Amino acid sequence: MSWRRQSILSANQFSLGDLNEILSLSVKLENDLKRSRNLKLLDDYVLATMFFEPSTRTRLSFEAAMHRLGGRVISTVGVQFSSLAKGETLFDTLKMLESYSDICAIRHSVEGASSLAARSIKIPVINAGDGAGEHPTQGLLDLYTIHRRGYLEKPHLTVAFVGDIKYGRTIHSLVQLLSHFKVNLVFISPKELALPEKYRELLNSAGVNYSETEDIAALREAHVGYITRIQEERFIDHREYEKFKDAYVVDTDLVGQCRKDLIVMHPLPRLSEVSTDLDSHPSAVYFEQANNGLYVRMALILGLLDISYP
Amino acid sequence: MSWRRQSILSANQFSLGDLNEILSLSVKLENDLKRSRNLKLLDDYVLATMFFEPSTRTRLSFEAAMHRLGGRVISTVGVQFSSLAKGETLFDTLKMLESYSDICAIRHSVEGASSLAARSIKIPVINAGDGAGEHPTQGLLDLYTIHRRGYLEKPHLTVAFVGDIKYGRTIHSLVQLLSHFKVNLVFISPKELALPEKYRELLNSAGVNYSETEDIAALREAHVGYITRIQEERFIDHREYEKFKDAYVVDTDLVGQCRKDLIVMHPLPRLSEVSTDLDSHPSAVYFEQANNGLYVRMALILGLLDISYP
Amino acid sequence: MSWRRQSILSANQFSLGDLNEILSLSVKLENDLKRSRNLKLLDDYVLATMFFEPSTRTRLSFEAAMHRLGGRVISTVGVQFSSLAKGETLFDTLKMLESYSDICAIRHSVEGASSLAARSIKIPVINAGDGAGEHPTQGLLDLYTIHRRGYLEKPHLTVAFVGDIKYGRTIHSLVQLLSHFKVNLVFISPKELALPEKYRELLNSAGVNYSETEDIAALREAHVGYITRIQEERFIDHREYEKFKDAYVVDTDLVGQCRKDLIVMHPLPRLSEVSTDLDSHPSAVYFEQANNGLYVRMALILGLLDISYP
Repeated sequence: MSWRRQSILSANQFSLGDLNEILSLSVKLENDLKRSRNLKLLDDYVLATMFFEPSTRTRLSFEAAMHRLGGRVISTVGVQFSSLAKGETLFDTLKMLESYSDICAIRHSVEGASSLAARSIKIPVINAGDGAGEHPTQGLLDLYTIHRRGYLEKPHLTVAFVGDIKYGRTIHSLVQLLSHFKVNLVFISPKELALPEKYRELLNSAGVNYSETEDIAALREAHVGYITRIQEERFIDHREYEKFKDAYVVDTDLVGQCRKDLIVMHPLPRLSEVSTDLDSHPSAVYFEQANNGLYVRMALILGLLDISYP
Repeated sequence: MSWRRQSILSANQFSLGDLNEILSLSVKLENDLKRSRNLKLLDDYVLATMFFEPSTRTRLSFEAAMHRLGGRVISTVGVQFSSLAKGETLFDTLKMLESYSDICAIRHSVEGASSLAARSIKIPVINAGDGAGEHPTQGLLDLYTIHRRGYLEKPHLTVAFVGDIKYGRTIHSLVQLLSHFKVNLVFISPKELALPEKYRELLNSAGVNYSETEDIAALREAHVGYITRIQEERFIDHREYEKFKDAYVVDTDLVGQCRKDLIVMHPLPRLSEVSTDLDSHPSAVYFEQANNGLYVRMALILGLLDISYP
Repeated sequence: MSWRRQSILSANQFSLGDLNEILSLSVKLENDLKRSRNLKLLDDYVLATMFFEPSTRTRLSFEAAMHRLGGRVISTVGVQFSSLAKGETLFDTLKMLESYSDICAIRHSVEGASSLAARSIKIPVINAGDGAGEHPTQGLLDLYTIHRRGYLEKPHLTVAFVGDIKYGRTIHSLVQLLSHFKVNLVFISPKELALPEKYRELLNSAGVNYSETEDIAALREAHVGYITRIQEERFIDHREYEKFKDAYVVDTDLVGQCRKDLIVMHPLPRLSEVSTDLDSHPSAVYFEQANNGLYVRMALILGLLDISYP
């Protein structure tokens, strides 16, 4: 079953064929946008962005993607959901979207909210982040960023994940997607924030080579460094937090000790874990990565609406 | 004076001719939307949705209606009204809409806000709910739902209203609209929440047959059951509330004791007064009813802008 | 260097030639809008309105301007900025706009925020108000209002500013713009709220004739009265505030003592400093002034995107 005309709920729903199709469609769209800022494909379509918790970057990325395709948008963010405050169920709130819109992107603080939505309504649903669950479109734009740089073709590509490997939902999504490719993965985190057993099993059964360490020095071997934030509240022992908070800062010094072709990624927002002195360094691709969300989400919207392109 | 080019402020402003015109235009739009999701009639027009209190379903319904007609939307919800916080009058806030937009929909917690707006600005105003006042577009979509099912043509059509008949503004709007048709009305409510004298007089002078009861069993005679929520704070005696809260739950059991052709309506949001076990029952039309808001609001926007169709 | 293709950050960036070009383009757009409500010039362009603090009138004016030009809008207001709450820098938040949009308007409570934005991203930035800093598009629409009435051609044009001359950022912007024209300026304010030294120097070096007084009677000589609100918290001595609060109310009585061709302007929101009894008086132009924001912002958007018109 193709990814087209479906909902996008989890990174685990894609086959290698799906991923290659999404990547090449995204490349095509990125290139075509250089010729025209509005591809005029979706004049008849309405996207609903239902962000039960705010996420400006993700929401605007979806909305810009729809506009660049020539489509239309209706939108709701956080505090505007009055009916939920009155006790209405999520099911009832979303049911109306069926006739008001042709596709919807949903962000919710509760894991599984998007799946519930997809079961409730007859239009395609895109999971734009559901609590501790998944954020599959972020995983896809991360994969696209690696692909766009030509790194998926690198022999022995090594991707290092740094920071909160345990709770980082964007890491979980990207790990699942990368398991379809020939990669080595390195997980660099405090023991408290190590890779959940579930993903170890997934990598083992997919035959993916990976290693785990607390030592940031392991970043030196990587072609891709995917950095995430470590949150203080994850630690019982405050001194442990302080130790890693200082050790896991990626700056020009550290990058200078790494491979020359290292690219540094971050799902944003970033705090101090990636130093701003790196922003103008050739290794820094995190802003490019955020921009890539536009092309990937355009590809996804086209695919879910089953619009053939070109 | 036709309803066209006017503002829509109250259910009492429509003649039978107006209602028939709105109903048939809505049917036409619903059918035409099956062929094209964008009717491309309003490329030159801007709708302003000014929701001084949030109402996601109603707002998105207006915005989707404008988009499906090919128009454009500017929007403000609740907390974004900074000037009002600074002490600006509603008149000053709305005055700008004259040049920024061609039509506006206003939701406000204060009764009469829409009428003030209509007197203040030179473009058509649609009352999208004003406190304890009216919600005429909800009344019209409710009427459309009954019409769409072919029930307005039923001989001896009986419509039962259940719940908070006293404060339910959607009931008040629909009662006024139904008074133009040959119907029997049954009002089922606790005595504390009975029909206001004003509407009794209206029905008497319109020659509409109606009865009032506390007993939910009266639903058995009805072709249409219009259910609303009972709020605890309306009761002085808490035990009274408890009694009716349990008695007035419409579920498959109760519906099984009713007419086979009963349709159950609800303006939403619903809490426990309509059981979710009814959602997939053929009698349940409340989600269809919410969707109908799209077609009726499309018809109203077209009419107020005096766009002839087809 | 022309104003075209730049960012708009301060009223001081414009030459007399720039201002004349903006004024005549705005007049042309206002006239053409009478023939068509959508000029269909910007189908390929997206405007981002990033309002870190709400300002409904200014935001909707920008969004309506974009829609009337045939463009598209993505929008964020106040509480929706979740990432900033998480500690993200403004730079990181804005960086994404580069690919999501073609031009952006930014409102922020901190002076200099727009300049930071313009240095951060490669698309044109419009300062839509930055704290105690500037509000250049308000200054331009104020200038346009004076021009549209034909007053810039009046010999010995006298413009009186009333109220909070010290902190009123819209006054500071307009004073800078007017310094390019042959005008007399009168500043009427309590001593505590007198013109900052910086602007005295600007007017002296531009050779502009001006005077300062506490006496509202000076309004009698003016062709233009630009009224602003006095805020209680600006005064150490509460009795001083009470004195001026009552003295500086512009109503039909006071206007009756003034020149017959006086026009009364106000940047809105207004409280009691302009009496509502003046609203229907021929001197009152403040609602016309607010509406003029549409045409001026259309002109600015066109110019910054370097779209030739007609």
